[in-house]
Amino acid sequence: MLVHALVNSARSFRRTSLLSNNQRFYATTRTTVLNSSWRNKASVAALGATVLAFGVLSAKEVYCDAVLEDKKRRTEGPITDSDPMRLRMEAFVKGLQNRIVSDIEQLDGKQFTRTAWERSEGGEGITCVLQDGNVFEKAGVGISIVYGQLPKAAVEQMRHDRGKEISADGPVPFFAAGISLVIHPHNPNAPTVHLNYRYFEIENPDGTPKMWWFGGGSDLTPSYLFEDDAIHFHQVLKDGCDKYDKKYYSTFKQWCDKYFFIKHRGEARGLGGIFFDDLDDKPADEIFSFIKEMGNRFSLSYIPIMKKRMNMKYTNEMREWQQLRRGRYVEFNLVWDRGTKFGLQTPGARIEAILMTLPLTARWEYMKEPEEGSREEDLQEVLKNPRDWIPLN
Amino acid sequence: MLVHALVNSARSFRRTSLLSNNQRFYATTRTTVLNSSWRNKASVAALGATVLAFGVLSAKEVYCDAVLEDKKRRTEGPITDSDPMRLRMEAFVKGLQNRIVSDIEQLDGKQFTRTAWERSEGGEGITCVLQDGNVFEKAGVGISIVYGQLPKAAVEQMRHDRGKEISADGPVPFFAAGISLVIHPHNPNAPTVHLNYRYFEIENPDGTPKMWWFGGGSDLTPSYLFEDDAIHFHQVLKDGCDKYDKKYYSTFKQWCDKYFFIKHRGEARGLGGIFFDDLDDKPADEIFSFIKEMGNRFSLSYIPIMKKRMNMKYTNEMREWQQLRRGRYVEFNLVWDRGTKFGLQTPGARIEAILMTLPLTARWEYMKEPEEGSREEDLQEVLKNPRDWIPLN
Repeated sequence: MLVHALVNSARSFRRTSLLSNNQRFYATTRTTVLNSSWRNKASVAALGATVLAFGVLSAKEVYCDAVLEDKKRRTEGPITDSDPMRLRMEAFVKGLQNRIVSDIEQLDGKQFTRTAWERSEGGEGITCVLQDGNVFEKAGVGISIVYGQLPKAAVEQMRHDRGKEISADGPVPFFAAGISLVIHPHNPNAPTVHLNYRYFEIENPDGTPKMWWFGGGSDLTPSYLFEDDAIHFHQVLKDGCDKYDKKYYSTFKQWCDKYFFIKHRGEARGLGGIFFDDLDDKPADEIFSFIKEMGNRFSLSYIPIMKKRMNMKYTNEMREWQQLRRGRYVEFNLVWDRGTKFGLQTPGARIEAILMTLPLTARWEYMKEPEEGSREEDLQEVLKNPRDWIPLN
Repeated sequence: MLVHALVNSARSFRRTSLLSNNQRFYATTRTTVLNSSWRNKASVAALGATVLAFGVLSAKEVYCDAVLEDKKRRTEGPITDSDPMRLRMEAFVKGLQNRIVSDIEQLDGKQFTRTAWERSEGGEGITCVLQDGNVFEKAGVGISIVYGQLPKAAVEQMRHDRGKEISADGPVPFFAAGISLVIHPHNPNAPTVHLNYRYFEIENPDGTPKMWWFGGGSDLTPSYLFEDDAIHFHQVLKDGCDKYDKKYYSTFKQWCDKYFFIKHRGEARGLGGIFFDDLDDKPADEIFSFIKEMGNRFSLSYIPIMKKRMNMKYTNEMREWQQLRRGRYVEFNLVWDRGTKFGLQTPGARIEAILMTLPLTARWEYMKEPEEGSREEDLQEVLKNPRDWIPLN
């Protein structure tokens, strides 16, 4: 989650444009997984160049060759499997963002607002937010591509908390690319969903990776329990995991239950999914394929659930319960989520991108407990005792 | 704020009663500042005995004499100025809670829900909450009296962060008593207010204080700027401070601006007030008088503002802005408030008491900025550049 925070933490940034729907600079048609059609648009080439020039200028004495090399490579043509992982991950998250935004827009009927931003030290991002839509209360889908120097404190933390053997003597150039989304629907029968996949690299002076890892996951947070939805969501994730490693699903499912736990409430944030970090135990190509597999499964995991739930009838009481659950979501994100905490404590971080995950509205009632035997209690019971929705290996 | 957290952090507690309005066990008539009429009620005597017995039993080998001595003293008659500060502060916060609750009820017309709780290690509390009232959206007024052993981590933190010369070798018996309130009105013209005063003591084995200090303050958080309100609130605080030390107001006003600052937003939580901690630079009697003076000024500082604002007309747009400001209140409390953070990270803490400070409802919009020249912008301007509402000494 540190990576995710770094991705969202721009010491200085400026918004490059609030893109209208006519000016979208990435293609709205789906092509391949490695959708890199954005590179063909002149506006993006210019943006990329500005961003990267900034990055080089601000750190030209200490930074490695990766920034310049990547910049040159971007101008030459489509990214292929022989390119550095940095560029492949960048192309992937941009394409994935494009496709997810398009799928959500199709369901909602309202368009996302797109904000492109750049980071003066090197990097860029696109934050897409749909607010007060027809189906969704708030949906945020963001990507970030960051080149920079790891602050000494971050190196220490990585050494201490995660056993990363990084020397803090001298500059530590890094690269991080990630996609992050949180989607909150209006209808209390329809669940909130979260997804985040990221690639992190620490570089040698010549631009080759000295150390790298992937992280991410996806989890479902409903206000009302529909067991079918939980099973569907987990099954889609498990099917993806099983293609790569039969141990992945059960390991990452349990990691998710442990991570998305609201400790002070003694309950899970939701019905779980998968979560992992520091994944580097196979060749990078193989893990990257896995990451793409899981990212590409997002719409399959979530859209069918939405279609079943988005038009169900609900009462004011159900809406109030949903608002209380949204309050718990806020509590988790502000109190326990490592990425959010790190981001908020980083001076100059891009706060709006970090906090796009918060719901539009939330509620806190004193000592509110669900009635015995109610549907609200059913949910709470599952949150207090996380279940295996499908058998673990 | 650590003290406040400890006060709210009960490793194990049980609710002793959800008191109906007819069963309130403290007098509803005001008597003196040191209102100790609660002691004359049999139910409280029983409660106190249970609490304190638990406290002694769970730590009888290591705990100092304070618990037993205080318990005995409570049965003998009214607390006077010659009693230990523990009992004097306890009597004071109970009386103050009683009076503030009564003043707020008079304004609102709806009654608070009172919850008495006890802490098995020693201690008790009363949490009063008014929710969805006629005037107030949510108001929480809580007191806690805690006897316990300081966890080693807390001792280390006190030594490290605040230079307290406490040895962590062997048990560190402590006592903490405090009152804490947050009041959120419905009307966007009417401000949220916060108050907290607390006494902390570390004891010798014979029950005499080895170290003690007071802390606290009060601050105002409106959604719309009425300069008159800010000046009135600060003037009431300054008048109280000036009676005790001409340097207090300006020192504590600036401390407040610094403490109640939402760092990731680069703005103050509200219009400030006073804040201080570790106050031990004068005889305890003198500081206690000052604490009483400031606590007793609460209604004078806030009620006249409420009377002016609670019936003013407002629009839906004003209500939305208020909800966004409530979101910022949540951000401060969950991300930056030391007491809340400490409490939430303490296993078994009484979460409902800690989080009673959160508003009933809150809102987060992506990249929402007030319009130029609007009243919303006026407030934001003051939050970004805190003012001296009355000249500092």
